[in-house]
Amino acid sequence: MISNCLGKNEKGHLTIGGCDTVDLAKEYGTPLYVMDEGKIRATCRMYRESFEKYYGGQGMPLYASKAFSCKEICRIVNEEGLGLDVVSGGELYTALQAGFPAEKIHFHGNNKTAEEIAFALDSGVGHFVVDNLTELETLNRMAGEKGCRACVLLRIKPGVDAHTHQFIRTGQIDSKFGFALETGEALAAAKEAAGAEHLDFKGVHCHIGSQIFDVAPFVLAAEIMVDFIHEIQKETGVALTELNLGGGFGIKYVDEDTPPKYDAYMHSVSDAVHRKCGEYGLPVPYIFIEPGRSIVGEAGITLYHVGGVKEIPGVRTYVSIDGGMGDNPRYALYQSSYTVVAAGKMDAPCTEKMTVAGKCCESGDLIQENVMLPKLEPGDLLAVLSTGAYNYSMASNYNRIPRPAVVMIRDGQPRVIVRRESFEDLVRNDV
Amino acid sequence: MISNCLGKNEKGHLTIGGCDTVDLAKEYGTPLYVMDEGKIRATCRMYRESFEKYYGGQGMPLYASKAFSCKEICRIVNEEGLGLDVVSGGELYTALQAGFPAEKIHFHGNNKTAEEIAFALDSGVGHFVVDNLTELETLNRMAGEKGCRACVLLRIKPGVDAHTHQFIRTGQIDSKFGFALETGEALAAAKEAAGAEHLDFKGVHCHIGSQIFDVAPFVLAAEIMVDFIHEIQKETGVALTELNLGGGFGIKYVDEDTPPKYDAYMHSVSDAVHRKCGEYGLPVPYIFIEPGRSIVGEAGITLYHVGGVKEIPGVRTYVSIDGGMGDNPRYALYQSSYTVVAAGKMDAPCTEKMTVAGKCCESGDLIQENVMLPKLEPGDLLAVLSTGAYNYSMASNYNRIPRPAVVMIRDGQPRVIVRRESFEDLVRNDV
Repeated sequence: MISNCLGKNEKGHLTIGGCDTVDLAKEYGTPLYVMDEGKIRATCRMYRESFEKYYGGQGMPLYASKAFSCKEICRIVNEEGLGLDVVSGGELYTALQAGFPAEKIHFHGNNKTAEEIAFALDSGVGHFVVDNLTELETLNRMAGEKGCRACVLLRIKPGVDAHTHQFIRTGQIDSKFGFALETGEALAAAKEAAGAEHLDFKGVHCHIGSQIFDVAPFVLAAEIMVDFIHEIQKETGVALTELNLGGGFGIKYVDEDTPPKYDAYMHSVSDAVHRKCGEYGLPVPYIFIEPGRSIVGEAGITLYHVGGVKEIPGVRTYVSIDGGMGDNPRYALYQSSYTVVAAGKMDAPCTEKMTVAGKCCESGDLIQENVMLPKLEPGDLLAVLSTGAYNYSMASNYNRIPRPAVVMIRDGQPRVIVRRESFEDLVRNDV
Repeated sequence: MISNCLGKNEKGHLTIGGCDTVDLAKEYGTPLYVMDEGKIRATCRMYRESFEKYYGGQGMPLYASKAFSCKEICRIVNEEGLGLDVVSGGELYTALQAGFPAEKIHFHGNNKTAEEIAFALDSGVGHFVVDNLTELETLNRMAGEKGCRACVLLRIKPGVDAHTHQFIRTGQIDSKFGFALETGEALAAAKEAAGAEHLDFKGVHCHIGSQIFDVAPFVLAAEIMVDFIHEIQKETGVALTELNLGGGFGIKYVDEDTPPKYDAYMHSVSDAVHRKCGEYGLPVPYIFIEPGRSIVGEAGITLYHVGGVKEIPGVRTYVSIDGGMGDNPRYALYQSSYTVVAAGKMDAPCTEKMTVAGKCCESGDLIQENVMLPKLEPGDLLAVLSTGAYNYSMASNYNRIPRPAVVMIRDGQPRVIVRRESFEDLVRNDV
């Protein structure tokens, strides 16, 4: 199994968090997102503990809520002592509604609106990760108008290419995010931030990509960032005390995926930060990281019922499911790999090569092509694995299909944490 | 201008349906979808009139509501005398809530669930466009259980390749939709349908693709379908009386797009149908077509405010807007072309090559690359044109960004037809 929260019971059914997925599908209907809380909490703790181990507690993991945002996940990561990374007013609102402490929130985004900045200032958000000069000026002015100060990190493009799919690559100079180092843009922004009357310029941030399996680019980025902290001190006299190294840690979607141990990543990066700071005689800054996918991704699966099976002789066999690109657009967007299993027939031999097609009226609505599955019949249950991140959060109502419920399992007990959308929900804003 | 509902006023502002877009943005906020009702109604009438002209009124255009479904658009196309094509229980629910007559609805989909079939039967939906044998059997059984009869068209793959983007191509043998002609699958299904106790087998349906500019594939598909009607009569004795030729008529996204006149399409296809029926001595069937994009696409635009402008020397210039792939995922999905204009600076020279980037925390969140625009500043207004189809309908809450409002303009008067989502809406189903 690609995730340690998954298993198989004596009936030959897939289990998650100890629950039989066939029973879950029967009780809650399909399509259904199911997540294991134990797995999520264990990963949160692993990150917290590695901060104890490698930074003497002088750091904090922030859960990147864009991977999966709802009130309950905010409560869970808060209970585990993590901070939060939000990228919009809506994610901030969700966190606050869940009682998340605003001071532990970092507010991201390449185009925060004035309304969002006002909302974040009024809410007492702990850190603004500033993307561009327009934002820096707006934030300084609005903080002044409100008679408060904003704590600021600058988002830097360290120029590290992490060799991922071009659509999810960041950190290079050709990116809509952040200030480039090479062009002098980043240093100019640092000077501006240092001189801004209503801003506390605390540190810098970088994010080098997504679904990265290699530790080396993270180490390189960390070194570049410490270099830059040193340069800022030299050029402006400002001693930055915080360094946010972003996220991008890969997870296992298919057997072939080989994510590094997150602890090994933490260890290597910590070594680099300590060594570099030692060289410059700098105190080690307070470190943030932003895991999202790695906290929730492998903890989630999606359950679907099979409709028709369409064999096109000599071409391929389509198996239709009762969800699709509406609840998981990642294959349509990125041709992402997924593991698909017959949740009620885990012991049956996988003899058939199949394309898993969604129910949207669009040929591109596929979940995966050429996966090996047992012989399937209408009513069989399929599970797509590692769908905890960027599935619910990217879901649409394309074809006016209601979004599925999310069920969370704690100690073998399932509960609904996001209710299934109803037809009434679909027309709620229609006049 | 690429759409005749657009113009420019004396202030140098873009207008739609005679309304100043700068005023609309001020009144309703951005991002904002704006649509012109006059343009929509005119296209509906053109289709209706061409059925009078070429089929003596023996046919009906069905609005393909997956292009843009909400209660008000259902009311408008109903007032214009069109039928409706729905692809899910949600689209059916929306239509019924708007008072759309169920008997004028065709129910599509490659994987209709039992719940959807029951809902459609109970609602008195006029036609089921049956995709596969599993559905045929389920529908026959459920109609029997309910003591009613279902009126059925079979979805056929005519094997015509309309040379479009592979992700929106249908009608070929390698498609998740319908019954293949070449393999004998279609004829076998016709025999099954003819013998089904609770089904009225009325006709056949095909759909050869999307955003097609060429009339020839439509003519070819129509010929193939009449051939098949003749074959069915010969093989089963059933005289089909209905032919649904689907949609796929291209629209203008950019200047280079050259959609055929829809009337020319109707004329050529009608000629082919009449000629073929004449050859076989068949009565001309009642004809349906399913325009969606061509009714609403060019009638809609999206308005955005500019945030930061980020020039990366020697690389490119990004202009950030306050929406993005959440409200228009078509560039991320298909690299679709769009025309982008500075709605408040229509007279300014377009001297800058820019990439229009959305506000989602994802590098792939772009609306268009390398478009020529005037020099832009934060607060300027951009309009993306021809967004009436597959924008609102595909919109998500990715990054927990609320979906924009839709404003419809009638006789120069704007009104909200879909309210802007609130933060409260985002957490409505959160536990």
